Amino acid sequence: MEKGKLYLIPTPISGSDFNSTLTKKDVEIVSRLKYLIVETPKTARSYLASIELENSIREIEMRVFDEHSDLDNLQELLQPILLGNDIGLMTDAGTPCIADPGEEIVLMCHRLGIEVIPMIGPSSIFLTLMASGLDGEKFTFNGYLPRKPNKRIKSLRYLESRINKKRGSQIFIEAPYRNQVMYDDILKLSPELNLCLGIKVGDKDGKVTTMPISKWKERNVKLDKVPIIFILGK
Amino acid sequence: MEKGKLYLIPTPISGSDFNSTLTKKDVEIVSRLKYLIVETPKTARSYLASIELENSIREIEMRVFDEHSDLDNLQELLQPILLGNDIGLMTDAGTPCIADPGEEIVLMCHRLGIEVIPMIGPSSIFLTLMASGLDGEKFTFNGYLPRKPNKRIKSLRYLESRINKKRGSQIFIEAPYRNQVMYDDILKLSPELNLCLGIKVGDKDGKVTTMPISKWKERNVKLDKVPIIFILGK
Repeated sequence: MEKGKLYLIPTPISGSDFNSTLTKKDVEIVSRLKYLIVETPKTARSYLASIELENSIREIEMRVFDEHSDLDNLQELLQPILLGNDIGLMTDAGTPCIADPGEEIVLMCHRLGIEVIPMIGPSSIFLTLMASGLDGEKFTFNGYLPRKPNKRIKSLRYLESRINKKRGSQIFIEAPYRNQVMYDDILKLSPELNLCLGIKVGDKDGKVTTMPISKWKERNVKLDKVPIIFILGK
Repeated sequence: MEKGKLYLIPTPISGSDFNSTLTKKDVEIVSRLKYLIVETPKTARSYLASIELENSIREIEMRVFDEHSDLDNLQELLQPILLGNDIGLMTDAGTPCIADPGEEIVLMCHRLGIEVIPMIGPSSIFLTLMASGLDGEKFTFNGYLPRKPNKRIKSLRYLESRINKKRGSQIFIEAPYRNQVMYDDILKLSPELNLCLGIKVGDKDGKVTTMPISKWKERNVKLDKVPIIFILGK
């Protein structure tokens, strides 16, 4: 029997409308799927409610995969694919497998020879980098930097040294309630370094701003506890 | 006068249809733009032909920005924005500013206080990373590695050492006619390292495959001269 495919479905990073998140072609594919692997069924259902489905939402079989899931059961999770059905994988907000869960499921698909189809969608990391004006030929996403103050500043100085060695733009994130302490530490770096803040990118009042640190210092910036993508670069 | 905005418009990486490239909401925005900055007007017009435009295509003012453009004239290029009009920036294939031109224009916008709005779209780098099953919490896009054989293998070994230091997935590209020599050199790395090849990603016969190098070695792989995203990781 021919195996099904795994579709990686990005979900809205703001609002809950698939029409402003996916391409028309991919909305059509999602509308036909009968099997889904999701983080939170309630959230997944709210996204599905924004588009016209071919089947009743009750007919869609949802299996949950989150941080509590047993990695030994991955093959069971993928059972419908082995029986010839396509499955869609969606997380609560964002792009599966990029700073978001899903890697283990995808890697298992590669082991089992299952085709994995990534759908076009919003990634706040990529959207911010696009709109930053900073080096997009070379860049690193560093995830979270260390939390402890002395380790954080050390880590920021390491990123600065990478930029000076022509290793490209350095991207990182922070827990929203630590945005301000992160920002205050960034201002301790070289004044000519560029800092880009992607604040609530993907949201209708989202904004991407790039300035040298010297310019940021002239403003009295107070960051809200909202998702921010930080990029340092030349 | 209120300034216009700069929209960054991703273009198809395969085919020429905006409907399978952009979200419905963004197709509507593009259909209303009267000013565009493009790499090749002919290519831009073929994309615009795939959607319903509010104005006649002849009424759209296209200005060209490519590798020959004079960077001193950026402000002139942005003149319509300063006069209150929105401008769309699109390259020939892909995401503006990510391994694609456009950074200088965007940085100039930040200097002039012009808002930059990135649109959701296909990036073969991001699509491959999503579907690779490799580390998406930390990753580096390295662009092109050095061309000379001894420097290329040295560079690959450096990337391997970065992976071993937990610095995440290492992504790079190669000129299509050098795909095979790059691949042959990659096979000289540790057999347990994972190699992901994103071949013609975004195309309908595109494919993402991840296996340990030891498994790739068992196959007699001959790579075509097509766009490939290479990812090494654990």
